[in-house]
Amino acid sequence: MGSARVFLFCSILAIFLNSVLGANKTRHFKWEVEYMHFAPDCVEGVVMGINGQFPGPTIRARAGDTIHVELTNKLPTEGVVIHWHGIRQIGTPWADGTASISQCAINPGETFVYRFQVDKAGTYFYHGHYGMQRSAGLYGSLIVEVGEREKEPFQYDGEFNLLLSDWWHKSSHEQEVDLSSNPMRWIGEPQTLLINGRGQYNCSLAAHFSNSSGSQCKLRGSEQCAPKILHVLPNKTYRLRIASSTALASLNLAIGNHKMVVVEADGNYLEPFSVSNMDIYSGESYSVLFTTNQEPSKNYWISISVRGREPKTPQALTILNYIPTSASKLPNLPPPVAPLWDDYGSSRSFSSKILALKGSPKPPKKHDRRIILLNTQNLIDGYTKWAINNVSLVLPATPYLGSIRYGLNNAFDHKHPPENFRPDYDVSKPAPNQNSTYGSGVYMLNFNTTVDVILQNANALKANVSEIHPWHLHGHDFWVLGYGEGRFMEKDEMKFNMKNPPLRNTAVIFPYGWTALRFVADNPGVWAFHCHIEPHLHMGMGVVFAEGVHHVKKIPNEALGCGLTGKMLMNNVHN
Amino acid sequence: MGSARVFLFCSILAIFLNSVLGANKTRHFKWEVEYMHFAPDCVEGVVMGINGQFPGPTIRARAGDTIHVELTNKLPTEGVVIHWHGIRQIGTPWADGTASISQCAINPGETFVYRFQVDKAGTYFYHGHYGMQRSAGLYGSLIVEVGEREKEPFQYDGEFNLLLSDWWHKSSHEQEVDLSSNPMRWIGEPQTLLINGRGQYNCSLAAHFSNSSGSQCKLRGSEQCAPKILHVLPNKTYRLRIASSTALASLNLAIGNHKMVVVEADGNYLEPFSVSNMDIYSGESYSVLFTTNQEPSKNYWISISVRGREPKTPQALTILNYIPTSASKLPNLPPPVAPLWDDYGSSRSFSSKILALKGSPKPPKKHDRRIILLNTQNLIDGYTKWAINNVSLVLPATPYLGSIRYGLNNAFDHKHPPENFRPDYDVSKPAPNQNSTYGSGVYMLNFNTTVDVILQNANALKANVSEIHPWHLHGHDFWVLGYGEGRFMEKDEMKFNMKNPPLRNTAVIFPYGWTALRFVADNPGVWAFHCHIEPHLHMGMGVVFAEGVHHVKKIPNEALGCGLTGKMLMNNVHN
Repeated sequence: MGSARVFLFCSILAIFLNSVLGANKTRHFKWEVEYMHFAPDCVEGVVMGINGQFPGPTIRARAGDTIHVELTNKLPTEGVVIHWHGIRQIGTPWADGTASISQCAINPGETFVYRFQVDKAGTYFYHGHYGMQRSAGLYGSLIVEVGEREKEPFQYDGEFNLLLSDWWHKSSHEQEVDLSSNPMRWIGEPQTLLINGRGQYNCSLAAHFSNSSGSQCKLRGSEQCAPKILHVLPNKTYRLRIASSTALASLNLAIGNHKMVVVEADGNYLEPFSVSNMDIYSGESYSVLFTTNQEPSKNYWISISVRGREPKTPQALTILNYIPTSASKLPNLPPPVAPLWDDYGSSRSFSSKILALKGSPKPPKKHDRRIILLNTQNLIDGYTKWAINNVSLVLPATPYLGSIRYGLNNAFDHKHPPENFRPDYDVSKPAPNQNSTYGSGVYMLNFNTTVDVILQNANALKANVSEIHPWHLHGHDFWVLGYGEGRFMEKDEMKFNMKNPPLRNTAVIFPYGWTALRFVADNPGVWAFHCHIEPHLHMGMGVVFAEGVHHVKKIPNEALGCGLTGKMLMNNVHN
Repeated sequence: MGSARVFLFCSILAIFLNSVLGANKTRHFKWEVEYMHFAPDCVEGVVMGINGQFPGPTIRARAGDTIHVELTNKLPTEGVVIHWHGIRQIGTPWADGTASISQCAINPGETFVYRFQVDKAGTYFYHGHYGMQRSAGLYGSLIVEVGEREKEPFQYDGEFNLLLSDWWHKSSHEQEVDLSSNPMRWIGEPQTLLINGRGQYNCSLAAHFSNSSGSQCKLRGSEQCAPKILHVLPNKTYRLRIASSTALASLNLAIGNHKMVVVEADGNYLEPFSVSNMDIYSGESYSVLFTTNQEPSKNYWISISVRGREPKTPQALTILNYIPTSASKLPNLPPPVAPLWDDYGSSRSFSSKILALKGSPKPPKKHDRRIILLNTQNLIDGYTKWAINNVSLVLPATPYLGSIRYGLNNAFDHKHPPENFRPDYDVSKPAPNQNSTYGSGVYMLNFNTTVDVILQNANALKANVSEIHPWHLHGHDFWVLGYGEGRFMEKDEMKFNMKNPPLRNTAVIFPYGWTALRFVADNPGVWAFHCHIEPHLHMGMGVVFAEGVHHVKKIPNEALGCGLTGKMLMNNVHN
């Protein structure tokens, strides 16, 4: 038994002991969601906050704890839900917080209780999952520490948490209208990148290093947009938790002069590897370790840059301050320079280093079903949409979890969505026929079977354009078996990494490439699987998986009081 | 029997005959509410439209007809309802379209059927009644003609319809946040007044008559903001229907060189009187007759001006075009000049002329209950609110109609709201104690009793400020028994007009004055009574009346699927 296996065994034993010994806690939160004036990037706008905070309060718990959030909707006319990104909701699929899928949106003035177990230590976050409420600022961190008697497979002296996001000056309401217009109006690049909800528009902490016209920020530190500085002691090792809740931007993070050792991704331990900068796509989370082994009389930049799209948004910066050096002393070197935005070689190289820690669960050797999902940009009656195997997802008024559980017809398309796409389709060119259709069908997965998903990227509407899409799966982690370029072929299976593929809940497809995932459909419920780019999801870029729904215990009525399930329950025609 | 009485008798007989003979129709509409880009005042913004139209489609029906609107909510995350302003909803209180009062808001993706009878000819309109969705542009005209065998008590050769509104460049979402902030941020005066959804910002049709810097509008006529011109033949009489759906502005309408004879208000006939300009408050509707007896080789202005608040918004203009004069020929005189904004003498004089047509129903001679409602501006924990007898209305998550019908406790404050205010309160000064409380209590009215309401205006928070408030009652018309200045005294009752008080659904209180209303609580249901200024209602300026709720027939489940009624029905614990 290798040390990693011993470690994992001990972890599982510890969870068991914590449970038996009553060490697990229920952590109670009372939250109110409301709009408020806020200046995340020094420009005042409106954000969707929780209890007056933006980003929302950080939840900290230990593995095995139960989270109990009483969420009251204080928005004037909008429903709201919160998705606990990365938490698998084993046994509580109604608490997944996805409108139209796991529950009815919470009406204004009403309260819904999210109660679920955080069974696995890791770096997570939560966010709105209704319309584009994540873009409106509804997000926060969820950090699960190891159980009291457990240990991480690495050591550190202190930790920091960075929740990354992007910010537009146009309201998410208006963005929704723009995206849904004919012709579609693209929302453009974000005005500002935010680190823990803070960024600087029209000024830079590092303006003096730049030739651009941006001015030097003059911030006292008390502003809503002032960067939170990371204070460190020399010669210590710190854990940096990072999660990306961006609506659009793919990011690259670097710490000036410091190497980072990547040890965790999406709540799963990795075989540690060292990098000088790292890519983070929307929906991903990581932990990295860094050691404060640099000249202690100086401070260093922490930089966040745009990747994968022409970088029209300035770097976000904050400072790594070596105590007792003054925190207001700016680094004497320019901020780190990220790889070129379209240097996908660098991106692929980083992705290829992400491998499971020895002793991690391995994927089943064989799949029972393989679903191939072609990602295309399409036109439907002149409206620009994203489609999967030529179906653009339209979410129904009745959440699937209830309608499938109660066998309601007419709640969604009962035609099965396609498992593949035309063999003659050329992924390197714009589609010959750009038409597509709307659909709300479900991939019904046999319970406890092993499912492969091949995400196939393609050319968008415009020639020579293929974008990055980070796909996020609810209710599961999947193994990332491999990445490839061009069209996936059955023979590519030979190259799958069956030895130490990482477990993730989010994986990217690179331009014109494919990504192969495998998971076991062992979590009764209905689960969204979608591009985590908010406007792309809004434009239909997602699918829905259902598995073992007949095993789902009684869904709370509070999750069902809309659409056809609401009607059914009110008319008392239960199954 | 006077001629007017004969007329009324015949009208009633005609309704009866239409009904018996099957002349009454059900008029079906399928509507979808959605946001769309629109430039109501030549500046593009987002409006809440219906079937792609702004304002929404005009409904035309005949008295006795049934209106059947299948309303589908196509908003991304917001609920929606539509109130049919002026329609009493006799026997269908669940179709009144007031969120939190008559029904649950319709969820995104869902459809609600409004089905109700328009029993009385008149000029009406409809509008959103949830949050500030009226301000977002959710309104349209509802015109009820007399039954097929009926006649109006006046004659005309043609008719026009003007739906008046005001428009801000800031979204209603942001306005809601501004108003709910501490300190409150006032929305300011509208950027533009709209006639049938059209106005001109930063240009004027009459710029050449003005010394201001505004430029002359250069419009081709096909723009969304181009005025709709009224084309008339010389020497004819036209009926002009006017309704005001403004969020804030009190208006004054004039037609250059033409007198107007006012014949209808809020769907009730008036003793005709002639004016050269008229005031129209939000929530009011009128019909006026005018005769095209002016020089036919010229065109004339139709102007809408702001009254009652410092007029920071330019006049709205359109043109009365005498055929065959070219419609593009501008009038050769400057637009009409409205009375000074604070010339309340002029306003009172106009109101005093509004009297019921001879033969109209008369008020009961005595009241069974008199409720006196003091209107004050207050502070609650630093938030600026409006309060009635020191209670600022907060609407509950469960609509009253359902919670009262099913006897649910905890759905709202069961403490009765106050019937009066302190005898030593000085309405001419800011309140000595500006604190107030939130409340959701209901005035429970005994069925079929006669209720007097005395609306008492007072000084606002700031010294020497008292504003106009147009109060609108749902489910009823009331008689306007009188207006007075200062504090209402019991002896003022002696001056009540018991002879020919007009029936209205909206009546204004003038600064520092009172207005006395009487109505019979004979319509089973729960009815909002509130200031029709949208931000004032949002800030708590309203009360709720309930009467004969046990007589209400089965409320459709679709109106009850939220809050405690939803819970009750889903848990199957019916009363």
